[in-house]
Amino acid sequence: MKVIELHKSVTESNDRDADKLREELREKGVFLINLMSSAGSGKTTMLSRTITDLKDRVNIAVLEADIDASVDAERIAALGATSIQVHTDGMCHMDAGMTREGLNNMDLDGTDIAFLENIGNLICPAEYDTGASCNVMILSVPEGDDKPLKYPLMFKSSDALLLSKIDALPYFDFSMEKLEERVRYLNPDIKIFPISAKTGEGMKEWEDWLLEELATWKRG
Amino acid sequence: MKVIELHKSVTESNDRDADKLREELREKGVFLINLMSSAGSGKTTMLSRTITDLKDRVNIAVLEADIDASVDAERIAALGATSIQVHTDGMCHMDAGMTREGLNNMDLDGTDIAFLENIGNLICPAEYDTGASCNVMILSVPEGDDKPLKYPLMFKSSDALLLSKIDALPYFDFSMEKLEERVRYLNPDIKIFPISAKTGEGMKEWEDWLLEELATWKRG
Repeated sequence: MKVIELHKSVTESNDRDADKLREELREKGVFLINLMSSAGSGKTTMLSRTITDLKDRVNIAVLEADIDASVDAERIAALGATSIQVHTDGMCHMDAGMTREGLNNMDLDGTDIAFLENIGNLICPAEYDTGASCNVMILSVPEGDDKPLKYPLMFKSSDALLLSKIDALPYFDFSMEKLEERVRYLNPDIKIFPISAKTGEGMKEWEDWLLEELATWKRG
Repeated sequence: MKVIELHKSVTESNDRDADKLREELREKGVFLINLMSSAGSGKTTMLSRTITDLKDRVNIAVLEADIDASVDAERIAALGATSIQVHTDGMCHMDAGMTREGLNNMDLDGTDIAFLENIGNLICPAEYDTGASCNVMILSVPEGDDKPLKYPLMFKSSDALLLSKIDALPYFDFSMEKLEERVRYLNPDIKIFPISAKTGEGMKEWEDWLLEELATWKRG
């Protein structure tokens, strides 16, 4: 398993560099999705299921970003999907330059969608444009329905929210109604998909939306 | 509810400043504990139960640090405990200067233990000495037993690990054995307390340890 060690980008303006990366990826025909969440919300499990469900329809590659370890990239690679692990030298987010460096180390020929599995926390990743054309976040039921109150920027910056581990709803004091009200207050247009990657519930709705977003992006 | 807006400390050396804060707190007789975890691991619920269980034996105050919102400080204040909310201006950690500023805004007369409820993520808080004399982290069962592999510094920096939400163990694929092995590899001396703040399981062991640590610290 190849592991890339990243260091802080020296680019003057990350926003400008992110726009540049978006253009480069459009030329390559790769739709980049920035996937953000707290640690342990089920990003890799969700991705694994999505890759398996859609394997006859789209080619998905995954750029795994972590402080340390490469367990996630190994799980994705075991599915036969293109994946690479990058380490962020202790940094709590990915920026556009770091994302480009990771992608440049991957063979993206024939790739339709590349997921950037961002560093696991609800704060720093929301502050940096990675060059992705779509931002998706995951919140898991055990984390609680009060998270939009505490981490508003992440909810504001996302095009879609996957509410994961809904199979655990009976065991937690979690109000779907309160969550939705708090999320919509911050971001009226966000798509919300309650899912369980374990039972498969809700996965089809999310995957249909993903394919539609890809089609819309391809039309430019 | 008073909310303090903090900005980045201008102190040259955070480590030096943290040592200074430790001395100041020793003079005041306040044992400061830095409580770290991911978002939604159950910090406030655990603290609420600890405060209630120990209310006839020690005075506990809580410094709640968040990016935004003040729901946590309100929950603690409702128990009759001294609490204050600080906002970190988007920053993902607390340093010694920020901690001092928060504590200076609290009435700590008669306080034995002050908990700093640090920003919810497993990365940045581990990198900054807050001036606390004891570091405690929480990992909740739903987050998964692979977290020591991904966030080694947090596990290395902690004196105790509270493994929370153990009432949820039957519903998750979580190996207590694997977790302990991974944690001990990083930090052989760490105390591990499996707890459920919901059912009360394991709380007595954690609280007994807390009182012992306080007594040891008081003896200097």
